[in-house]
Amino acid sequence: MNDDRVLATYLIETPHALEHAAAVIAGEQSSGTFVSVPGETHELKERFGARVESIVPLDSVDAPSLPGSKAPKSAGARPTYRRGLVSISFPLHNFGPSLPALMSTVAGNLYELQELSGVRLVDLELPPAFAARYPGPGFGIEGTRRLAGVVDRPLIGTIIKPSIGLSIAELRPLVRDLALAGLDFIKDDELNADPPYAPLAQRVPAVMAEIERAADATGRQAMYAFNITGELDDLLRGHDLVLKSGGTCVMVNVNCVGLAGVAHLRRHCELPIHGHRAGFGALARDPLLGIGFAAFQKVWRLAGVDHLHVGGFSGKFYESNDEVAQSIRDCLTPLFGGYRVMPAISSAQWAGSAVGIFDATHTMDVIHLAGGGIIAHPGGTAAGVRSMQQGWEAAIAGVPLDDYAATRPELRAAIDKFGARG
Amino acid sequence: MNDDRVLATYLIETPHALEHAAAVIAGEQSSGTFVSVPGETHELKERFGARVESIVPLDSVDAPSLPGSKAPKSAGARPTYRRGLVSISFPLHNFGPSLPALMSTVAGNLYELQELSGVRLVDLELPPAFAARYPGPGFGIEGTRRLAGVVDRPLIGTIIKPSIGLSIAELRPLVRDLALAGLDFIKDDELNADPPYAPLAQRVPAVMAEIERAADATGRQAMYAFNITGELDDLLRGHDLVLKSGGTCVMVNVNCVGLAGVAHLRRHCELPIHGHRAGFGALARDPLLGIGFAAFQKVWRLAGVDHLHVGGFSGKFYESNDEVAQSIRDCLTPLFGGYRVMPAISSAQWAGSAVGIFDATHTMDVIHLAGGGIIAHPGGTAAGVRSMQQGWEAAIAGVPLDDYAATRPELRAAIDKFGARG
Repeated sequence: MNDDRVLATYLIETPHALEHAAAVIAGEQSSGTFVSVPGETHELKERFGARVESIVPLDSVDAPSLPGSKAPKSAGARPTYRRGLVSISFPLHNFGPSLPALMSTVAGNLYELQELSGVRLVDLELPPAFAARYPGPGFGIEGTRRLAGVVDRPLIGTIIKPSIGLSIAELRPLVRDLALAGLDFIKDDELNADPPYAPLAQRVPAVMAEIERAADATGRQAMYAFNITGELDDLLRGHDLVLKSGGTCVMVNVNCVGLAGVAHLRRHCELPIHGHRAGFGALARDPLLGIGFAAFQKVWRLAGVDHLHVGGFSGKFYESNDEVAQSIRDCLTPLFGGYRVMPAISSAQWAGSAVGIFDATHTMDVIHLAGGGIIAHPGGTAAGVRSMQQGWEAAIAGVPLDDYAATRPELRAAIDKFGARG
Repeated sequence: MNDDRVLATYLIETPHALEHAAAVIAGEQSSGTFVSVPGETHELKERFGARVESIVPLDSVDAPSLPGSKAPKSAGARPTYRRGLVSISFPLHNFGPSLPALMSTVAGNLYELQELSGVRLVDLELPPAFAARYPGPGFGIEGTRRLAGVVDRPLIGTIIKPSIGLSIAELRPLVRDLALAGLDFIKDDELNADPPYAPLAQRVPAVMAEIERAADATGRQAMYAFNITGELDDLLRGHDLVLKSGGTCVMVNVNCVGLAGVAHLRRHCELPIHGHRAGFGALARDPLLGIGFAAFQKVWRLAGVDHLHVGGFSGKFYESNDEVAQSIRDCLTPLFGGYRVMPAISSAQWAGSAVGIFDATHTMDVIHLAGGGIIAHPGGTAAGVRSMQQGWEAAIAGVPLDDYAATRPELRAAIDKFGARG
């Protein structure tokens, strides 16, 4: 990859030849219109045209995955829909190192083309000019570990539950209990941003008072991710309030705020940004449409999140464990030699989830979040936290979970209550 | 609809009973976790729980539309996947009148649920608190018409082509030609934001010099939509430059910038915002996933765009003419008694496209954009513009296009060159 082009790889499906469909994408996303126009010279196309770099044919199907495609007449009454991976390169000078302008090119009108019955952006390779413009994660894995005071194991975290509806008075003892129980990381639910019944202006100081009081007792301050999702002024005000109150993390639902908002927050931000991917499924669940996680996470890492949600192992969401494992590896693969973010694993997690995660990824650089899996533990929250730590200890040591639980009642109780989930 | 709830309507597909799947969405998006937790009291659920308001069963299919769903054991080896429209209401006080927080709730994690094999947000009803917080379009249809000086017909517009690659020196005579040719509206391509080869800082004054010189000749200033898509600072700087230079419109690729960025621009903005929907297909092309246009456009109208792209009639994109017509009607249907935006119709349009559009919508409150259909007209650009106006005249008068063309050579030439497209 040279320094002056962006390489985008798509999984496509088309009733045309793959070469033709790839050329249509390249034309549409660089200099195309439906008829040639004056000024579209050979020199201009050479300098500004997108280029099809490679085509890898895959299987074919006899029905289109998406509606609205049009087959060529030569395809007859029952066209074949060919699938393939196509890589297209775009000159950087078409848009410059701007994520919103990049996305307009690599993830814009092409999704609507009739030549395609499937189109998914599966990966992006970006030239270093993006690293020069975008600082990426301000804290990343190392900064997060430093602030949370956890060096040699995953961060064990939980989500405030019930997700919504707790008054400040109800929230305080819950936070106190969680922080005293030894949690490394506590987060607001993605649904709970700045609601009128418990606004951030009251929630932040109340929560921080409990977090700091618990830190006095435990000797370590839990990282609390305050959900500051909102309009731009909300983001900046929320961040400043958390910072001023002694907090160590802010959380943003990145899809709902958008690229410009998150990148602006990043430039202002003095805390790690916990990136929640709520809404990702809308972009990604159809395997022949949208944006795959590998491309998605690169964009948000550049924009500046420090943590990014990746789903859960054997959770309640649609992705397979293999897909979640690949998402974890994606977050941990350096971009421009750095920019690593900490994967946040969530959704119906419990102590035993650690085994599958570690076996598949061999990393402990994760935030492992369990809601019910911790606070609904039969022995209480502290036992829930211990059980999660024990699950990871067993996974890292390669000891079967039941064996490790023989002398560890917290893990044993977790297996008995949650183990049927697998 | 009462004043304190948001109503979201989804098209879903599920291997469970529709009632169960709807209840899972309601629980996941209000107070759910996979096991009951302390504090999730009856009172809390009453006050903060989402409520399934209605279920309309539709057809059933024997294969899931999306991967990752899990059927109940009772469904046996070959589950039936039931489709239906479900309406779920959410208490406003769960998030308050914040679009990013709203979207986290109505378009968040629910897309990933295993209980669903299809889920699409098809409509939203919002309480007036959103109108109190969000000013909506600053100019809308009336303000756009006033600035463009067009009262009794659609705005005829074009897109600068080639989309990208024109130097400032090449762009100037092109803009001059377009403005002198009588175009009401000229826009940058969505791909062309602030590229290094022709940066906005040079493009805006150069284009405005031509626009104003042409206005001296024609007596009317064409509205030029400068594509200011970028990071937040780019948006504000771009807007200020356009305003200072005498321009009358800024353009933003809304999906690529995101809600917080566009809403922030709106509060700063003294010009109409031309909203381009590049990337919409990623969210909408699978009919069982994502966000339908009816819901999509309400969110962006609140955020403050004045114009919104709706695709084209018989264009090169995937939507049917019926879908595009419905999108046009959606944009023109008042929200909170106002907030109407001007639909921008684009994609392989020409003079004859007017007939189908007007027959289906009976409106002329549109921006009708043609690229090649105007500038590749055999008689030149001015003839291309005249042909578009004549197409609308014929459509509004209900005169067959060929009859109307009998005495109008510009329309005749357009039919001969572009008519085969239908």
